[in-house]
Amino acid sequence: MKALLVYAHPNPLSFNAAIAATVKEELEKKGIEVKVKDLYAMNFNPVLSKADLEGTHTGNVPADIKAEQEDVRNADIIVMVAPIWWYSVPAIMKGYMDRVFSIGFAYEYTESGPRGLLNGKKGLIITTAGADEKTAKETGLDKVVDMGIAQALFGFCGFSEYKSKIFYAVPMVSDEERRNMLSEVRNLIQNFA
Amino acid sequence: MKALLVYAHPNPLSFNAAIAATVKEELEKKGIEVKVKDLYAMNFNPVLSKADLEGTHTGNVPADIKAEQEDVRNADIIVMVAPIWWYSVPAIMKGYMDRVFSIGFAYEYTESGPRGLLNGKKGLIITTAGADEKTAKETGLDKVVDMGIAQALFGFCGFSEYKSKIFYAVPMVSDEERRNMLSEVRNLIQNFA
Repeated sequence: MKALLVYAHPNPLSFNAAIAATVKEELEKKGIEVKVKDLYAMNFNPVLSKADLEGTHTGNVPADIKAEQEDVRNADIIVMVAPIWWYSVPAIMKGYMDRVFSIGFAYEYTESGPRGLLNGKKGLIITTAGADEKTAKETGLDKVVDMGIAQALFGFCGFSEYKSKIFYAVPMVSDEERRNMLSEVRNLIQNFA
Repeated sequence: MKALLVYAHPNPLSFNAAIAATVKEELEKKGIEVKVKDLYAMNFNPVLSKADLEGTHTGNVPADIKAEQEDVRNADIIVMVAPIWWYSVPAIMKGYMDRVFSIGFAYEYTESGPRGLLNGKKGLIITTAGADEKTAKETGLDKVVDMGIAQALFGFCGFSEYKSKIFYAVPMVSDEERRNMLSEVRNLIQNFA
């Protein structure tokens, strides 16, 4: 089994970094080989260009994107870790979605509508939010993350199983609560991977 | 009255470009001064850095972002035009949201919770989707765009009025239908601005 861990946070000492490290550790405990994509450390270019757009339609996918697609193709499980900013992932991760999960690779259009091409994979997105759980549920943040990222990306691309998890009020919680959150991450990986 | 038109599409001949041009024309017909932010043409850097993050918390906002914030502050109405990719705007526009609408400028935290600082403005996001309207409603795309962009950004920042509009199945429709869509854009601006 192989996993791809796609992670984005501008601060290498953030709680998101601790989540990503915990995900990696738990996956490896299960004997799963983990490839890490630290998008900030990679200086990933998130801007889908006119050439990218033309390339995906003519089959001339740029070399850097082809390499990323190869890593997605080889993974049995993809775990994304990032903070939620404005109800979505940071731009650098949004651009990873825009550029890597392109037509012809991740999905195609058939006479009966769109069809996912990444069948059989599992997808998990673990995020942190500033909002507390009550506010997040009132304003629909949980739904937007689940429908707008997990279902929109993993579901549309034909993944066999997918899930989203939000940790709330992260800037406000105590160290003990953070330790509990990391335990939750361990359980999540043990049960999902 | 002043308007800020924030537009993102990699192809200057796209239907989104036609929407943006129509928005500008209609705003100007109403005597509104329009400043255009063509994020691709500007080569806007969408990646919120560690320095940005520290700067917004210490009040040392980078010069390029300060200039963008000045333009947001001066606008009575902000219109965003972009395609929907993976249930959200392209990374270059997501990064405009991440970097420009920062804490201390667009919102602040008070004892009673977050408080928007961009009061009295109007916000409109006009997008195009590949999905047809029936599929989009079944999969929650319309809700995600309305809750996850219009409400999440404009609402959270204290705008007095905001709205989202999606044009569906844009790659599939006839030239006549596109002309009708541009008429709808005209009506939308006439009624909203």
